[in-house]
Amino acid sequence: ILDDGGDMNAMVHRELQSLLPKVVGACEETTTGVIRLRAMVREGILKYPVIAVNEAQTKWDFDNVYGTGQSAIDGVLRATNILLAGKVVVVAGYGHVGRGIAERARGMGARVVVTEVDPVRALRAVMDGFSVMRMEEAARVGDLFITATGNIDVIRREHFEVMKDGAVLANAGHFNVEVSVRDLEEVAVEKRRVRPNLDEYRMPDGRRLYLIGEGRLVNLVAAEGHPSEVMDMSFANQALSLEYLAGRGREMGPGVYPVPREIDSEVARLKLESMGIRIDELTREQEEYLRSWRAGIGGA
Amino acid sequence: ILDDGGDMNAMVHRELQSLLPKVVGACEETTTGVIRLRAMVREGILKYPVIAVNEAQTKWDFDNVYGTGQSAIDGVLRATNILLAGKVVVVAGYGHVGRGIAERARGMGARVVVTEVDPVRALRAVMDGFSVMRMEEAARVGDLFITATGNIDVIRREHFEVMKDGAVLANAGHFNVEVSVRDLEEVAVEKRRVRPNLDEYRMPDGRRLYLIGEGRLVNLVAAEGHPSEVMDMSFANQALSLEYLAGRGREMGPGVYPVPREIDSEVARLKLESMGIRIDELTREQEEYLRSWRAGIGGA
Amino acid sequence: ILDDGGDMNAMVHRELQSLLPKVVGACEETTTGVIRLRAMVREGILKYPVIAVNEAQTKWDFDNVYGTGQSAIDGVLRATNILLAGKVVVVAGYGHVGRGIAERARGMGARVVVTEVDPVRALRAVMDGFSVMRMEEAARVGDLFITATGNIDVIRREHFEVMKDGAVLANAGHFNVEVSVRDLEEVAVEKRRVRPNLDEYRMPDGRRLYLIGEGRLVNLVAAEGHPSEVMDMSFANQALSLEYLAGRGREMGPGVYPVPREIDSEVARLKLESMGIRIDELTREQEEYLRSWRAGIGGA
Amino acid sequence: ILDDGGDMNAMVHRELQSLLPKVVGACEETTTGVIRLRAMVREGILKYPVIAVNEAQTKWDFDNVYGTGQSAIDGVLRATNILLAGKVVVVAGYGHVGRGIAERARGMGARVVVTEVDPVRALRAVMDGFSVMRMEEAARVGDLFITATGNIDVIRREHFEVMKDGAVLANAGHFNVEVSVRDLEEVAVEKRRVRPNLDEYRMPDGRRLYLIGEGRLVNLVAAEGHPSEVMDMSFANQALSLEYLAGRGREMGPGVYPVPREIDSEVARLKLESMGIRIDELTREQEEYLRSWRAGIGGA
Repeated sequence: ILDDGGDMNAMVHRELQSLLPKVVGACEETTTGVIRLRAMVREGILKYPVIAVNEAQTKWDFDNVYGTGQSAIDGVLRATNILLAGKVVVVAGYGHVGRGIAERARGMGARVVVTEVDPVRALRAVMDGFSVMRMEEAARVGDLFITATGNIDVIRREHFEVMKDGAVLANAGHFNVEVSVRDLEEVAVEKRRVRPNLDEYRMPDGRRLYLIGEGRLVNLVAAEGHPSEVMDMSFANQALSLEYLAGRGREMGPGVYPVPREIDSEVARLKLESMGIRIDELTREQEEYLRSWRAGIGGA
Repeated sequence: ILDDGGDMNAMVHRELQSLLPKVVGACEETTTGVIRLRAMVREGILKYPVIAVNEAQTKWDFDNVYGTGQSAIDGVLRATNILLAGKVVVVAGYGHVGRGIAERARGMGARVVVTEVDPVRALRAVMDGFSVMRMEEAARVGDLFITATGNIDVIRREHFEVMKDGAVLANAGHFNVEVSVRDLEEVAVEKRRVRPNLDEYRMPDGRRLYLIGEGRLVNLVAAEGHPSEVMDMSFANQALSLEYLAGRGREMGPGVYPVPREIDSEVARLKLESMGIRIDELTREQEEYLRSWRAGIGGA
Repeated sequence: ILDDGGDMNAMVHRELQSLLPKVVGACEETTTGVIRLRAMVREGILKYPVIAVNEAQTKWDFDNVYGTGQSAIDGVLRATNILLAGKVVVVAGYGHVGRGIAERARGMGARVVVTEVDPVRALRAVMDGFSVMRMEEAARVGDLFITATGNIDVIRREHFEVMKDGAVLANAGHFNVEVSVRDLEEVAVEKRRVRPNLDEYRMPDGRRLYLIGEGRLVNLVAAEGHPSEVMDMSFANQALSLEYLAGRGREMGPGVYPVPREIDSEVARLKLESMGIRIDELTREQEEYLRSWRAGIGGA
Repeated sequence: ILDDGGDMNAMVHRELQSLLPKVVGACEETTTGVIRLRAMVREGILKYPVIAVNEAQTKWDFDNVYGTGQSAIDGVLRATNILLAGKVVVVAGYGHVGRGIAERARGMGARVVVTEVDPVRALRAVMDGFSVMRMEEAARVGDLFITATGNIDVIRREHFEVMKDGAVLANAGHFNVEVSVRDLEEVAVEKRRVRPNLDEYRMPDGRRLYLIGEGRLVNLVAAEGHPSEVMDMSFANQALSLEYLAGRGREMGPGVYPVPREIDSEVARLKLESMGIRIDELTREQEEYLRSWRAGIGGA
């Protein structure tokens, strides 16, 4: 079973239970699907092994950092045609997606401010050269806000109230809940569509805020989602994972499994090959050295 | 016990066994020490819990990426005074240390080439905008080589033979084995010290190669090691880990433990505070949302 | 007279000569227009002063480096949706436009190769961390080509013949002559439109090359030209230049004049103010120091 | 005559006037020297042509942007061993030197603030992604200050009074006047040398400020000045300029001349060649096109 979102796996377990004995295994593409599967494991109802393709390094890291990093910027440009150079771009969240966006925004000449709730991530953002502050401060200085936290109401009434005239709001994270559209609708005295995917909200004091794509994922709404260059790796992970399950699925108990490391490596290897890039191989002496080293130096 | 390298823990187990019952726990600062401890676990001889401070995010990531990234560049400049802008810098290995060095070399205006044996890391380097190729090709184009692989003979005779006149060699990884000094000594017809920490090797065909600090760690030999800004986080991790062990060490079985996540967070929080940086806190609604989300959406 | 392209000035001189005595002066927005005006000066036929707004620092530098830099990348993304991270982007020409594009392409994670005919510019590109090579070599390694030279046939038959399958061609420079569409049409065995603004040319050996917007300016054809943030400075230069002419035009002889330095400064000052940015002012002591310094130190 | 600073030229005119008839021409390496020569021209006393080597593109741009950019950072690291990642670095002045330092500081992971008195330069800094503010604000947030303005008292008493404990001060510009050492000495209650080239000044309220190299040029005092890679271009300019003067000096009247464009190009070409880099040449059709284009399109 090749699933995307967890619906198929859920259906098989609920409505098509007669099929269960025939299922060797499945793989799941999304974060949401994996969360649902883990819940099934906790409840003891998952009946076959599932490989969480979503968590492959060649899926997770590349998709989110490089794919969404670019497509979120792309979406903002298509929706607004603003010049990023010299703008203050506030990125909420410094996980994979947030980091990708922050890097690309800086790459386009913006000054980037990061907001975070996790101190380790916040510190990493600082060390990567970004400004880090609380959203209540960032709200006052930002020209463009992009959320990527996976949480609700990251930008809300108290922030709208202090933003600069002309500030642009976009979400690259979760559904349409990160920028509180509800608060924005309540606080605004007028709303009009000024460009495709761009709504102007007029505040009681005359300031105008611009919301891209009704707060839904900017890279899907206003751009074209992931370029094929990152989707191909997801598909390769799925195909190789299914092949793996076909071979060994019967021996694996029910559960959520990571993508085997050798599949991850193989996908990366194929990708590099397709780009015409060759990398080094370990010499026999080097392999031996690594082995002995990992086995513990203090052996003698 | 606060250990750095694993020697103290080894000694206690071998020679001071009478102390063993009194030891509540230990923490270990280095990669080498942790490897030795894991070997002790495998052999069933470790008698108390040890926290691998080395693997704290606030130790591992920051030390290696930011600390060594800067200090390796610093070491090269002090040893050679070459202009990095416009140079081709070859970084061998794209782990934490290699990535840190590659970023900093690019930041100084160099064109950076990365070599790797791991396809996933190699692909990451490509996506981060670096050229990736085999060392046999990189050897022909590099002006400066910095190794950070943790393996032996990464640069060896076959590479020395094709390098450009004037190429500079430095090691930021493991002991003094990454650049094969033995091969270099064998292949060269003459050797002389041209600056402190810089030896010129003359090849039979007249080309000159320059080795920094006899192939030992460039950031220790030619610069001053980690700045205090990264050491303070290591020390904080050690102190808080010992405190943690004092409280709960008796309940923990023997073994190698990761630094508790809350200590990592606390170290980062203190560091941010010392930098005058404040970050957001989750609202009650946000905490609830995260909890319900992680518990599985498909619950209904 | 406020002109854009030189047509109005040409018409006044040829067909509306009765108006000439009333014209106090004019300003001209484009490179092309300024070139035409200079030709008129050489021929002794220009009858009034013209300010070359095009050459204001706040027009020329910002428009070309930051405006076209972003909009060329934007145009490529809209036309192709390719992932720039990890791609080899070849930028032909390292003038203002080329430099802007090269910076932004690097900022999106691409490896950038620059081609140039001017050694000083080529050297600057090298020092800025870009690879520089001849187009005949670059043609073999590039994934995306963007021309910005102001010359014809920068990419031509001999280059198409060695490009990789899938290479994308775009022009951000002059008309539609930089990529030789004529050669491409001749050399290809088949052509089809695969997306809006994107044509696929099939080579006799099966390789496919993709041309954006028929080789016309990628930022105009496939994106939306300059963002308002750079146009506002052009307009401000025009307005202030006209005001200047209204005041002093009668005293200025016929000719092409640069934008007065104080207008350039004023435009920049207004722009900064609109961004909420305040800058330092010289103290009286500093002004005095500068004056005496410029007057010559060796005075004594 | 090959001069560096203008002393030789001054001496020849004052004390060795008998030599004047024999002097074909001279070239001058420094800004200071050129300023003195221009003063001599104004006073009508310069008796032979002088080429201002200082103003060659291959001297001026490369020296200042790339050379001083790197060596100033290098000097700071040697003097302090601070970690730049995550620090706020305030660069005063965004001319060639300031821009070079700002780029390199960012490249090392710092957040860079620029201060300027010229609005056009300030705007350029903003568009390049740097924060721009007044020194009175920057003084409160900076961890490291580097001056590069060519003016006096850029950082002075009012700034020292609000700086953070631990702030580091360095000068990469003019003599030792940019950081007002006089004010610092007056305001401090204690001073001690904590490392070579690093003095700690204790403020009345206990804060400590650190001054590198007594406020003299950080790249000369604490590092090794320009790397040979930029000096070689200066020397090449001098040699070729002297050759040029030997050939044509007699025909040139007294005055200060720029380095002929063909020499600048030749120096860059030689430099590229020495780096193994080849660049494109114009085809005959391209040369013709450029010629006709520059001659005016509107010719018809």
